[in-house]
Amino acid sequence: MKIGIVTGGGDCPGLNAVIRAVAKAATKRGWETLGIIGSFQGLLPPQNYRVLDYKALDGLLVRGGTILGTANRGIFSVKTGHGQTRQLPESLLAETRRGMETLGLSALVAVGGDGTLTIAHQMHQFGIPIVGVPKTIDNDLAATAVTFGFDSAVACATDALDRLHTTAESHGRVMVLEVMGRYAGWIAICAGIAGGADVILIPEIPFRYESICAAIAERERIGKHFTLVTVAEGARPVGGDYVSAGGDTAQREARLGGIGAVVASEIEKRTGKETRVVVLGHLQRGGSPTNMDRVLCTLFGAKAVDLIAQGRFGEMVTHTGTSVESVPLSEAVSRLRTVPPDGAFVQAARALGISLGD
Amino acid sequence: MKIGIVTGGGDCPGLNAVIRAVAKAATKRGWETLGIIGSFQGLLPPQNYRVLDYKALDGLLVRGGTILGTANRGIFSVKTGHGQTRQLPESLLAETRRGMETLGLSALVAVGGDGTLTIAHQMHQFGIPIVGVPKTIDNDLAATAVTFGFDSAVACATDALDRLHTTAESHGRVMVLEVMGRYAGWIAICAGIAGGADVILIPEIPFRYESICAAIAERERIGKHFTLVTVAEGARPVGGDYVSAGGDTAQREARLGGIGAVVASEIEKRTGKETRVVVLGHLQRGGSPTNMDRVLCTLFGAKAVDLIAQGRFGEMVTHTGTSVESVPLSEAVSRLRTVPPDGAFVQAARALGISLGD
Amino acid sequence: MKIGIVTGGGDCPGLNAVIRAVAKAATKRGWETLGIIGSFQGLLPPQNYRVLDYKALDGLLVRGGTILGTANRGIFSVKTGHGQTRQLPESLLAETRRGMETLGLSALVAVGGDGTLTIAHQMHQFGIPIVGVPKTIDNDLAATAVTFGFDSAVACATDALDRLHTTAESHGRVMVLEVMGRYAGWIAICAGIAGGADVILIPEIPFRYESICAAIAERERIGKHFTLVTVAEGARPVGGDYVSAGGDTAQREARLGGIGAVVASEIEKRTGKETRVVVLGHLQRGGSPTNMDRVLCTLFGAKAVDLIAQGRFGEMVTHTGTSVESVPLSEAVSRLRTVPPDGAFVQAARALGISLGD
Amino acid sequence: MKIGIVTGGGDCPGLNAVIRAVAKAATKRGWETLGIIGSFQGLLPPQNYRVLDYKALDGLLVRGGTILGTANRGIFSVKTGHGQTRQLPESLLAETRRGMETLGLSALVAVGGDGTLTIAHQMHQFGIPIVGVPKTIDNDLAATAVTFGFDSAVACATDALDRLHTTAESHGRVMVLEVMGRYAGWIAICAGIAGGADVILIPEIPFRYESICAAIAERERIGKHFTLVTVAEGARPVGGDYVSAGGDTAQREARLGGIGAVVASEIEKRTGKETRVVVLGHLQRGGSPTNMDRVLCTLFGAKAVDLIAQGRFGEMVTHTGTSVESVPLSEAVSRLRTVPPDGAFVQAARALGISLGD
Repeated sequence: MKIGIVTGGGDCPGLNAVIRAVAKAATKRGWETLGIIGSFQGLLPPQNYRVLDYKALDGLLVRGGTILGTANRGIFSVKTGHGQTRQLPESLLAETRRGMETLGLSALVAVGGDGTLTIAHQMHQFGIPIVGVPKTIDNDLAATAVTFGFDSAVACATDALDRLHTTAESHGRVMVLEVMGRYAGWIAICAGIAGGADVILIPEIPFRYESICAAIAERERIGKHFTLVTVAEGARPVGGDYVSAGGDTAQREARLGGIGAVVASEIEKRTGKETRVVVLGHLQRGGSPTNMDRVLCTLFGAKAVDLIAQGRFGEMVTHTGTSVESVPLSEAVSRLRTVPPDGAFVQAARALGISLGD
Repeated sequence: MKIGIVTGGGDCPGLNAVIRAVAKAATKRGWETLGIIGSFQGLLPPQNYRVLDYKALDGLLVRGGTILGTANRGIFSVKTGHGQTRQLPESLLAETRRGMETLGLSALVAVGGDGTLTIAHQMHQFGIPIVGVPKTIDNDLAATAVTFGFDSAVACATDALDRLHTTAESHGRVMVLEVMGRYAGWIAICAGIAGGADVILIPEIPFRYESICAAIAERERIGKHFTLVTVAEGARPVGGDYVSAGGDTAQREARLGGIGAVVASEIEKRTGKETRVVVLGHLQRGGSPTNMDRVLCTLFGAKAVDLIAQGRFGEMVTHTGTSVESVPLSEAVSRLRTVPPDGAFVQAARALGISLGD
Repeated sequence: MKIGIVTGGGDCPGLNAVIRAVAKAATKRGWETLGIIGSFQGLLPPQNYRVLDYKALDGLLVRGGTILGTANRGIFSVKTGHGQTRQLPESLLAETRRGMETLGLSALVAVGGDGTLTIAHQMHQFGIPIVGVPKTIDNDLAATAVTFGFDSAVACATDALDRLHTTAESHGRVMVLEVMGRYAGWIAICAGIAGGADVILIPEIPFRYESICAAIAERERIGKHFTLVTVAEGARPVGGDYVSAGGDTAQREARLGGIGAVVASEIEKRTGKETRVVVLGHLQRGGSPTNMDRVLCTLFGAKAVDLIAQGRFGEMVTHTGTSVESVPLSEAVSRLRTVPPDGAFVQAARALGISLGD
Repeated sequence: MKIGIVTGGGDCPGLNAVIRAVAKAATKRGWETLGIIGSFQGLLPPQNYRVLDYKALDGLLVRGGTILGTANRGIFSVKTGHGQTRQLPESLLAETRRGMETLGLSALVAVGGDGTLTIAHQMHQFGIPIVGVPKTIDNDLAATAVTFGFDSAVACATDALDRLHTTAESHGRVMVLEVMGRYAGWIAICAGIAGGADVILIPEIPFRYESICAAIAERERIGKHFTLVTVAEGARPVGGDYVSAGGDTAQREARLGGIGAVVASEIEKRTGKETRVVVLGHLQRGGSPTNMDRVLCTLFGAKAVDLIAQGRFGEMVTHTGTSVESVPLSEAVSRLRTVPPDGAFVQAARALGISLGD
């Protein structure tokens, strides 16, 4: 028996660890594994793949990114913007199936985010034997309590806050760190708590500059002349726009960079304190996965092979918080898991005196 | 209002982060916090403590260990060996209460393992207003799904395996890493999976040297001339003794060091392969907590103050896997959470071809 | 006897380690040490300082930044822009001396960059007993072969390149990392070599976009579909301006951010390859110093106290590459040490096929 | 043109980075590079090697150990114990040359320590075109100011001390860390200074238990109830034997483990303070090289290829402290570089109040 594995969407730490786990678990069962290059595209002629024997897995556990490459766009795109989903044409699905037959693949493991899992779901409905492994560095998929890559991203952001802490303190500055999180503020709130941020801004809780400045003033009052602000890339002020104290509104982001730069600029203008911004960006996606992510990737990969062995196609691996299970792909896609504004994380942050900017 | 906090038992990463969270959450409520030095002993005359104002909390989040010190023994000892528990004399409990009154403390937070929590439980039964925060670096407390310090210890052990990997491969050696875990193999199995160990030995699954050697031989067969073995300090061979191929049994541990040294010596004798052992020991207890541990500590500390505010004394903070809750101290003590031999971790390990030595 | 220590200029890892070393070495000799807060300003009434006894030094070795704060501007400013130097008025120098007398200080250690050392030199000429410790994270001071903070900054930038490597490879992208180095490219070339950059742009060697694009094309040719570019903040294209392929020139930096963003934008325009930029910025200044920096700080601090004990005022600690010595402050200031375009680092980079963009 | 590269002796971080640099620099010149497997042995029939094309170098810069494997013993052994050197038989040297001819090699790069460089020297005298790259993790080779792997080993030991610091402080214990350094104490003194050790024991300065205990007592006096001791594996008490307070002398090392365990046991016996020992061992050899080591490896590899290009066989790459040069292999071997007891490192340690145990 021979199976294939594809990785899709933005890369994140642990993709290679999942690939390794799938290939090792398959090999243990006596199966062969092909790593399909360039996401689903690699299934189409001229097929592009590499055989994942033991030698090919060497060093994969600790290596960031994906040796199979990934694709955000192309003929398999199902996300058309504005949250709409496109149905892949039957001809493409049929060609995909023929590609699998050419390669002799009995089943496919698709590792990816909402887009990749939606493709996988459509393939399953078309009759292609496929299972899913969720990947969202933002940790914002409703169908699973936790995903790999997230802990590594939080570790990266926490390390950044540790670094900014000492330089902020030495210079008596406000430091703004922009982290990932377009729709969900998990990275911001976890890194913010772990890194000792004084203000945490997340998409789920629109903020007011007045509140941020009040938090900075309160810190001055107790003798702390520096402030650390963590802001998720998707955080927005109340009213949804980049409203400035000076009145100008519109194209500020385009001019100033992301929300981190806007917030820093606004704080400096309003408080008169030196304010600096750091945008972590792609640093969060790279690097070796943390131990927790490596364990999660291994559990996920082993479970995916287990699902195939049981013929449970159309399902996706999940973590319930205490164990690894599976759910139908149909339940998995297009449902976000955001930070509950009255949940334990926000409550703990508030209890410690961290401002959410509201 | 004024509260006190004590830390007891062996130290682990995150104790200071809990202290900080408790003091910050208390300050936010307008309370004062005293850090009691040297565990419960510091409550007795001459009282030994430090005021935990904002200044005192500076840098605590990232600092390993406990600024309050800790005590494993002394007049508050309730563990008499062989798993038996001693009831503290009423005179001592009364003196403790008087000490609290002298300091003006309305409540106490006790952070510690089974011993400390048992003391806390007895104090609660005596009428002392106390809440508990569980600490077990081995992650082996039944009443909570996860405890702080554990992720940091696993991170330390995983890093060690990453290091041993390359030197083992370069020299074609067997490398044995001994990690913590007297009764539960959580650190061994998590670090073993995360660090790519080929053999993982845990207290829950007695091992056979024949199986270990077979795993090494199987690796040679596929061209891997090195093997990584992770062994929990509490792992034992089938039969429970350090049986040697040469027939000598008894005092081997005393002579050779811990189980890691015994296993290494036995592997070298049986396979003829160069085998080296590293005992991580106290390295696992020290150092800055990981981001995950820092978050957990903060949630735990905030929750402990919340319990006090609600007058829910005699309870202990817990993590259910998805949220932070509390349970009676009586349920918390003396019940171990071990690695299920048929659970997801062991299954995933076996699925990938990792030997459990059985 | 009592001595004072001030830290000035931009902060960098290791300042606290120097403070600790000076205070410990002074204490060993039976002297008292005052840490002056807010640079030289803290010597003036109302004096601002803290006593650096053993307790105050707790944890300083590993802590980034400076507990004494720092000041880039103010009445002690001697740098007037365009490389010009201002002579401090006698009245200010006299007031400084009176401040020292008020505090009972017999000597001063000044830790800082070109500005701080120039002030120190003027103070020495005025008769104030002072010695200097050089600080330049860019490693660009001619009077010393190496300075503290530099290795930590390179470590931070190297870690960033390691992270960007895997994400660049997964997505087949060009990744541009902007690092510090206004006049000297030491951080860029060391981190670039250590992090496996394919293109390194430094202030000392003006670059051409044609050369950068040729390097990217050459990598494509050998099957490497990603490229890592490290650019020092002070790097400039030949001709000295941000000349764009499209012809527009002037205010690009203001609009686009620093040189990193300009280079990334230009590469994407010319090659059509997805290109991303990360600006490390303040992350390089923060964090715990590396072991090498901690050793250097300790050697420097011990030497500074030694100079005072010998009455060798007006001198600055230096490292010759093999030992710690001292030179007159007059020799130390205003002389840059840049990367020799035909030196070992550039030669090694070229030998390995790394493009310098020329 | 085709060249070969061998790695010999104990592994250390950076070997792969040297291999990569040599192969990249050779490729840049249009040469081919063969990596010889299993040290010089791989040159003999049946030849064992791998072609080091670009693909083979993937990920090597950051990977610890050596992909070529290494050999400490075998028919090329020239060290016979007691510091004596054996001349390799002409027949073996001739066979080696024939092996090189069979593979089509015009020159050889030998990366290794004293043993490997001695072999290289004999090969050169026999007429084999060979150049050397020094490797000694202990940094104890007289012919070069610094070698790769050393900074990484110090980083590992410093991190261990950081970890032990907090646990020592929490429990009021003495912690002893044993690090590498058989004849030279460079790792011990650099890590000791960087990690804030209170006592540093090196082979160059015989120690007295009385002095160590006095240092511990002095710390108690100033309120520091814990002490960190760093001991090089080659450190010895005055008199050269493991003299115990109890009078028993001889086989203590055999029974107790290395010098670290002996020192810990003796301290506990004499002071009554809880004392723990950690032996870093192989952890120091593994792991990814630090940025400094990666730069050094790259400079060394590039220089080695340069020496070949210039036909300067029989020479070895060196670092003078400020630049990369070369010296004859004859000067390189069998000459140790130890820590000068009156040099800057020991002086700085003493200046800060660190005890050298004498």
